[in-house]
Amino acid sequence: MKKDYDLIVVGAGPAGMTAGMYGVRSGLETLVVEKGICGGLSNEAPEIENYPGFKKVGGMELAEKMKAQVSEYVEIKELEEVKKIELGEKEMMVITENDSYLTKAVIISTGTKHRRLGVKGEDEFLGRGISYCATCDGFFFRDKPVIVVGGGDSAVREALYLKNIGCEVMLIHRREKLRAERYLQKTLEKAGVHILWNSVVKEIKGDKTVRSIVRYDKEREIEDELLVEGVFMSIGEEPVNELAVQMEIKMDKNGYIITDKSQRTNLERAYAAGDITGGVKQVVVACAEGAIAATSAYNDLLELS
Amino acid sequence: MKKDYDLIVVGAGPAGMTAGMYGVRSGLETLVVEKGICGGLSNEAPEIENYPGFKKVGGMELAEKMKAQVSEYVEIKELEEVKKIELGEKEMMVITENDSYLTKAVIISTGTKHRRLGVKGEDEFLGRGISYCATCDGFFFRDKPVIVVGGGDSAVREALYLKNIGCEVMLIHRREKLRAERYLQKTLEKAGVHILWNSVVKEIKGDKTVRSIVRYDKEREIEDELLVEGVFMSIGEEPVNELAVQMEIKMDKNGYIITDKSQRTNLERAYAAGDITGGVKQVVVACAEGAIAATSAYNDLLELS
Repeated sequence: MKKDYDLIVVGAGPAGMTAGMYGVRSGLETLVVEKGICGGLSNEAPEIENYPGFKKVGGMELAEKMKAQVSEYVEIKELEEVKKIELGEKEMMVITENDSYLTKAVIISTGTKHRRLGVKGEDEFLGRGISYCATCDGFFFRDKPVIVVGGGDSAVREALYLKNIGCEVMLIHRREKLRAERYLQKTLEKAGVHILWNSVVKEIKGDKTVRSIVRYDKEREIEDELLVEGVFMSIGEEPVNELAVQMEIKMDKNGYIITDKSQRTNLERAYAAGDITGGVKQVVVACAEGAIAATSAYNDLLELS
Repeated sequence: MKKDYDLIVVGAGPAGMTAGMYGVRSGLETLVVEKGICGGLSNEAPEIENYPGFKKVGGMELAEKMKAQVSEYVEIKELEEVKKIELGEKEMMVITENDSYLTKAVIISTGTKHRRLGVKGEDEFLGRGISYCATCDGFFFRDKPVIVVGGGDSAVREALYLKNIGCEVMLIHRREKLRAERYLQKTLEKAGVHILWNSVVKEIKGDKTVRSIVRYDKEREIEDELLVEGVFMSIGEEPVNELAVQMEIKMDKNGYIITDKSQRTNLERAYAAGDITGGVKQVVVACAEGAIAATSAYNDLLELS
């Protein structure tokens, strides 16, 4: 079994998949390792309208297309978590939960994970009424009252998706206006989704499953209880940066990896691409960064050889 | 007729089209102006295998898909060349060959144009045997001897395309190895395309149309004449930077616009995206830069308002 690579890509979201394809196409022996399945958080996007080339495409469908395409070039090991990367003089050792590989260069494209709200009931009802993904779980809540928590693009998309499939949807947002792009805001308004402004979820209650939330209205300074059967969390993401921390790669104050325009980090032959670098978190941007990171790795290794 | 915009995008290649879509979706009154037709140089790519989401897609087909998609949001004025952009205190005046528009912000995505070889016969036989685009003109040369000039990705792609449609293909390259990605090199080798190494075209000869080229072999220091009916130039591109020059936007020594990671130039409310910024010239990268530039314009204008 092959254990020695030019380039190992950690994470197989859009950034990592694209990096893998570009790596192999430029002639590098490349491997992509992914702790879950291909696609990353893009899998959870109900519908993407702004990925150039597709008027409308489901996040999972797009990820599957990419997987089929890049798999013609590069091997992707799914369900294998990278635990540690040890830096040697010329090579690095990538240690996963069940194997280890040598590589000359590494691309970190570990993405982000959902931020937690941190309220009572959140752990208890996760998967029993609380969800982070409308496309994954929305169907179970048809004709039922649900609430989406958040005010950004993804919160609005989740709300629209749930409304479309026939849920009774409310949106709860802690501020007095949404951060989401105006186009999405207008669509939301047209869809008639009720928005609870200046409000936060204080507690999630239920029996076997969610039955209600306790809402605190910051402006009126009152609490009330709203009957819902589903709570969809869309309160943002945080970087999955454990490897970066362990490798002492420079990050910004929010924990996102800092790169230059060629996706180089402060460590030699270590690159980063996709949501883990912060910035404009869009599928097309992640793909581009993956392409650039692999190209930089190719150029840097060529210079060494 | 509307003459007053938040954002005007100059150039409707993949970068400009994506910028237009993101501009409108974020709520900016946006216009895209293009001197030719949508798609830019990507139209000429015979086959794109590394745009994430499509295993194989013609450059023109991909550009058409993008045009159909972004046209649902943004108006694109084709066949209207921007002649000048005048900078005011708060607004800019975009002057085209037949109109003028006010805008608060501008994205330059004017791309690149084909570099010329600069040899005898090149002007004379342009369009009469000399072509810069195999997809556009290759069909006329089926079963005929043709030569592709260059050594990069696009030269190899052009050669493969011509070989596939049944031309007798040679490639002429001034160095002893190709710059193209290894994957393409291997495919070229398999296809059996003959390569003339260390050789340059000295002259292109013919009667009404091309009949031959004079080749100079730099290693053996000899000249000979090769009978060909088509000459396909793929010797690189140079930036279309007249507007940037006129606006005094900072460029690098090769004439590409310098931007930060948010696609901002040195001028306020002037951004650049796509091949005009140099770097990794790939469709997916151009699209991403367009998305980022429009997002930066949106953020900057929001701060001003």
